[in-house]
Amino acid sequence: MAINTRSERLEYVDLDRIRRTVDGGPYDAVVVMSPENVPYYSGFYNMDLRSIPERVHFVVWSPHTDPTFVVIDRRASSLKPEDTFVADVRGYEGEAFDSIRVLAEVLTERGAAAGRVGIEGRNFPAGHLMELQRLLPGARVEDAFFFLESVRLIKTPAEVDVITRATKAAMDAVDTAFRAAKPGDSERAISARMQYELLLNGCDQVAFPVFGSGDRTGWFHGLATDAPVEEGMILKTDFGGLLDGYYSDIARTAVMGKATDRQRDLHHKVTEVKHRIVAGIRPGMAASEVSRIGIQAYADLGIEFKWNILGHGLGLGVHESPQLYTWIDDPLQPGMVMMIETGYRDYPGDSFHVEDLIRVTETGAEYLLDVSAHEHLWELGR
Amino acid sequence: MAINTRSERLEYVDLDRIRRTVDGGPYDAVVVMSPENVPYYSGFYNMDLRSIPERVHFVVWSPHTDPTFVVIDRRASSLKPEDTFVADVRGYEGEAFDSIRVLAEVLTERGAAAGRVGIEGRNFPAGHLMELQRLLPGARVEDAFFFLESVRLIKTPAEVDVITRATKAAMDAVDTAFRAAKPGDSERAISARMQYELLLNGCDQVAFPVFGSGDRTGWFHGLATDAPVEEGMILKTDFGGLLDGYYSDIARTAVMGKATDRQRDLHHKVTEVKHRIVAGIRPGMAASEVSRIGIQAYADLGIEFKWNILGHGLGLGVHESPQLYTWIDDPLQPGMVMMIETGYRDYPGDSFHVEDLIRVTETGAEYLLDVSAHEHLWELGR
Repeated sequence: MAINTRSERLEYVDLDRIRRTVDGGPYDAVVVMSPENVPYYSGFYNMDLRSIPERVHFVVWSPHTDPTFVVIDRRASSLKPEDTFVADVRGYEGEAFDSIRVLAEVLTERGAAAGRVGIEGRNFPAGHLMELQRLLPGARVEDAFFFLESVRLIKTPAEVDVITRATKAAMDAVDTAFRAAKPGDSERAISARMQYELLLNGCDQVAFPVFGSGDRTGWFHGLATDAPVEEGMILKTDFGGLLDGYYSDIARTAVMGKATDRQRDLHHKVTEVKHRIVAGIRPGMAASEVSRIGIQAYADLGIEFKWNILGHGLGLGVHESPQLYTWIDDPLQPGMVMMIETGYRDYPGDSFHVEDLIRVTETGAEYLLDVSAHEHLWELGR
Repeated sequence: MAINTRSERLEYVDLDRIRRTVDGGPYDAVVVMSPENVPYYSGFYNMDLRSIPERVHFVVWSPHTDPTFVVIDRRASSLKPEDTFVADVRGYEGEAFDSIRVLAEVLTERGAAAGRVGIEGRNFPAGHLMELQRLLPGARVEDAFFFLESVRLIKTPAEVDVITRATKAAMDAVDTAFRAAKPGDSERAISARMQYELLLNGCDQVAFPVFGSGDRTGWFHGLATDAPVEEGMILKTDFGGLLDGYYSDIARTAVMGKATDRQRDLHHKVTEVKHRIVAGIRPGMAASEVSRIGIQAYADLGIEFKWNILGHGLGLGVHESPQLYTWIDDPLQPGMVMMIETGYRDYPGDSFHVEDLIRVTETGAEYLLDVSAHEHLWELGR
């Protein structure tokens, strides 16, 4: 965790955008509690946002009013001034509904007890909603998930920097682990080494250690087993860490020993689809349109499209808007940071996957790191 | 992930207890979706239950009826027969509310469309609840969190075994990292080594890598920084992994170099409080009563009780019932597996923390691993 002062935290956040969004929005109050939005709306980040979600953190914003942070007593008593830019911190007791009692008080103070209250429908617990409705029967609670996420779509320069550093840490970790791998090493040994290097490279936590070899490359989010990776086997990782709360999420494929022509050809095509997507992106395009560039490239290259997603925004969330599905029409905008990912899956049998970090520019899209020497089908132990 | 067959999965679960609970309960249907309960009610576990919660998994059980598993299409198409003991698997599309459309169909088939439906209020997303209420306005949706968790309170022998193995992996990882640490090593280097060893010792993922030295031992769930750990400094970790979906969660404290008398004395007292709690446990005692044993021990030993929890159940969840708070009256029962944790916190300044695994027996409680050579204040680099 490199952020250690309030001013460093503020650098990550576009406070004006939060202010403009809340002031111009339809809600008398919004209540943020997801691990993705709490850091943005409060400046506060801790690993327990993700790993102990039942100790809820609520950030309440209302038009033209300073925010309030509602946290469990033990957090309230241990918060240091540099941990958050929210001055008004209120504590609650326990993991039951005392948090909702305090939240209801805060909403009432803000004149929202009989008003429109926006929550993150995907994150706010149903039990807490029922209790809030009991305490404030006049409040009209609505799902404001995408409204609240919207402030994070365009990344600040400090955010681009931290995401790029987290991605570089992941690339370098894959690099080191791949270079050290030998025929007969277990999946576990290679994957553990990768995770170790990610931490040494500066990430605070491992976030996504998907790993498999042989048939297991086709497992959906499988993890390393004790199975040895023998000569000729494909191995594949979908891999990232957390740095100051921000994700990295790359994918790489390798073969133990020398690749066959078929393996090389399939991997080349999967990588080529990725390049065609990146080359085809124009700001203003809908996510669905970008998806169709990818699907067309699969068809042109003569490989079946069996992967349902082609990319997604990345930041405090691992899968942020816009998600590159055919049914999502969100427009891509300059300043968005995204992962573009393509794959080919034969189960049982080899699967291939590449995923890299790009930024949408004023005219197209650019890789944020040089992937030219990294995205190839790695040949290990040679 | 050592579990690879359906019969191995079934060994972890007390199916009779699920059946009896659901059949004898007040609900026309229950809907399970938490990462803690899905593995128990379906036999299915994947890391994405925790890391991509928006791709919801619903397990629906009703009295005297076989369960149904509602999962995203991509999961449905990649589920292998050995992945779950639920035969009826239904797919839904996307991350929006198509899952609720399918869930509503399943509930309707079960005659629960106008009945009582139990959900996990702490996990079921509020947005999904609002959509469910729109589709099935006659359903009476209620929070059944503790009802659903209750089937997991008493651990099966296979569960005790996996939790013990996960805990041993964590203890051995701490051991190796502590033995390798030298004055001047960064927090990051020591913590990363610990995480690496945890994976090599067989855990599938690192779950809880809390680490700090010096003043940072008092940070609430802080992670390792690049700061060096110098001679005389306390370092403290709250540490565990995941194995087949089950947690470990131990805490250890060390000093770099030789401990001062005061450090040794405080650590001894913290450890002694833990022992007095373990010695005092009797089946049938309320969690609050066990907590008071600990608080009394703090007072008797003359150190202030500044830690608000003294232990918690552990299994598929890192903080399961019963939680040892003074305001929780759940009774401890033979067969429960728990962490007992005690600490002392001077912020700024040294903090101390020990946490170990016990099982409640017919007559008291027992440590599941020999902690006698592990719970002491470690002196590193000597």
